[in-house]
Amino acid sequence: MRATVIHASRDVRVEEVPDPVIRRPTDAVVRVVLSCICGTDLWAYRGLADFRSGQRTGHESIGIVEEVGAEVVGCSAGDLVVVPFVWSDGVCDYCAEGLTTSCEQGGFWGTKGSDGGQGEALRVPYADGTLVRLPREAASDRRLLTALLTLSDVLGTGHHGAVGAGVRPGTTVAVVGDGAVGLCGVLAAKRLGAERIIALGRHPSRTDIATRFGATDIVAERGEAAVEAVRELTGGRGVPAVIEAVGTAQSLWTAVRITRDGGSIGCVGVPHGSDTGLDLSDVFERNIALRGGVAPVRTYIPRLLPDVLEGVIDPSPVFDLTVGLDGVPGGYQAMDERTSLKVLISC
Amino acid sequence: MRATVIHASRDVRVEEVPDPVIRRPTDAVVRVVLSCICGTDLWAYRGLADFRSGQRTGHESIGIVEEVGAEVVGCSAGDLVVVPFVWSDGVCDYCAEGLTTSCEQGGFWGTKGSDGGQGEALRVPYADGTLVRLPREAASDRRLLTALLTLSDVLGTGHHGAVGAGVRPGTTVAVVGDGAVGLCGVLAAKRLGAERIIALGRHPSRTDIATRFGATDIVAERGEAAVEAVRELTGGRGVPAVIEAVGTAQSLWTAVRITRDGGSIGCVGVPHGSDTGLDLSDVFERNIALRGGVAPVRTYIPRLLPDVLEGVIDPSPVFDLTVGLDGVPGGYQAMDERTSLKVLISC
Repeated sequence: MRATVIHASRDVRVEEVPDPVIRRPTDAVVRVVLSCICGTDLWAYRGLADFRSGQRTGHESIGIVEEVGAEVVGCSAGDLVVVPFVWSDGVCDYCAEGLTTSCEQGGFWGTKGSDGGQGEALRVPYADGTLVRLPREAASDRRLLTALLTLSDVLGTGHHGAVGAGVRPGTTVAVVGDGAVGLCGVLAAKRLGAERIIALGRHPSRTDIATRFGATDIVAERGEAAVEAVRELTGGRGVPAVIEAVGTAQSLWTAVRITRDGGSIGCVGVPHGSDTGLDLSDVFERNIALRGGVAPVRTYIPRLLPDVLEGVIDPSPVFDLTVGLDGVPGGYQAMDERTSLKVLISC
Repeated sequence: MRATVIHASRDVRVEEVPDPVIRRPTDAVVRVVLSCICGTDLWAYRGLADFRSGQRTGHESIGIVEEVGAEVVGCSAGDLVVVPFVWSDGVCDYCAEGLTTSCEQGGFWGTKGSDGGQGEALRVPYADGTLVRLPREAASDRRLLTALLTLSDVLGTGHHGAVGAGVRPGTTVAVVGDGAVGLCGVLAAKRLGAERIIALGRHPSRTDIATRFGATDIVAERGEAAVEAVRELTGGRGVPAVIEAVGTAQSLWTAVRITRDGGSIGCVGVPHGSDTGLDLSDVFERNIALRGGVAPVRTYIPRLLPDVLEGVIDPSPVFDLTVGLDGVPGGYQAMDERTSLKVLISC
């Protein structure tokens, strides 16, 4: 089959790779229908995160189950499923608590011996713990299928940020980052009942989506000016619930500075760089809580799925470019150059 | 009157200073009965925190109200009161929410124009918001009065750590730090129903108090060995609720490493040093929450007071040396050399 492979910084290729097969009785093989490129895929692409040359890429997909191992009971051939960005066994203590990202049998797509999401098919370990079945009829509704694809990562990650920020009905929220996760953070905050949502972003094509997703205020400034603008919008005190959806020193600094004393930051931007930008003294003096981390999206899917199916929320606008598998290298380039927000891959 | 003044690193003196007087109608003047020396007082003493030469020291006291301003209604001359380590107006939004340490009229003892806790008397701004009245009869019970003194800081701070760590009935808790705050963290965790309390400390005189306060396990190791020991006690996974009561890079590192994935750290050790020791990637990957900060002890006093008065908890053993005002410089030295855990000042 064909799948994407990263060989070096800015060198992602579509190649022939071995077809996935059932190796363990808990495996499933899923034929990919839709996949996409994530902001975190860009870290390796830019040479800013470690990777093995020859590593498979991508970690978000929706597909049709092709074959299941002897012990798999939760799905069978022909089922439409969403594949979260981490596989998990579904039965360990962490999975039982909902922290599927800490599953001791869990793992990330693209690690040694595993497939990636950007390919024609993939072997899914612990299929019963990992996969979530979707209504079969969704397969014929492209808009809906695209929306459902976000359950594999960005929608659940945005939701994790909103939960970490402590969003409740009536809360004022700020979202740092206008990438797909930040925009899904806006949508998730709105869904949880936030009354006022301040989105920080300077690309009108993105902040327009933020507004569509429920943002009530847009702050286009950066750095100190952004902090001042947010404080001006909030009587000088800042925002009690902040979603940090970037992960750089600058964005974390901004998140801390715009948080109201006693507020919470839901951190879902993967931290990058040795300088974390975190002023612990400021965090401490103002009793700011830092919560969040790698989102256990598998846990959130059953919670978010009904609202996506019923159209209560529609995250599909985060995709602004569609490519076939052959177009994936160009898709990386488009996201790297910020000419695309998030690339959908139609397999 | 006489009060302590810091002139330079390791140069704390008892001097004649102006008697406090009512300056604003919301002030009270309190004659100090008991005061004490705090671990955080040592940072300036050791030259590791900024201070003005000539600054007054100390921020924990219990005393008798001597005079009140025209607008004070909550206490009157002759009342026995506890003075929290921050004054606060009691009426602003932050105070209403319980975050008295962020009160916009609030302030710290020893800052310019204010008295310190280590002296014969002090002027208390916003007396109605700041002071909490105690039963008059407690004044004649030295053990009880000593226990009540901890409400001004260390007991409330330990409680804040336990709250930040998310301690609930049945929780397993670890406490990093065997100073007075750490020990009060043990006591507070026990009070909140923790089932298992692992205290990290290597001074038997201190860990004996931890055991008396409810610690079920003592870990005397440090660094990597301490992490291993705690993980061994908890099936390899670490502790879901950790109280960080030191504030150094090393202690924060230890706290993160012993926290179970998905757990919370209640940070109450004032952060010191530019290297925070915080590995944000580890915190992020394991979904560890950092909560806490400067403890709003004023808010906690009404909650903790009944249990202290009824003897349900007795934090008084954190004091192991008593001096008069003249003995304060020697008290600093004893705490600096770790021959004393916490020094009580009988004024």
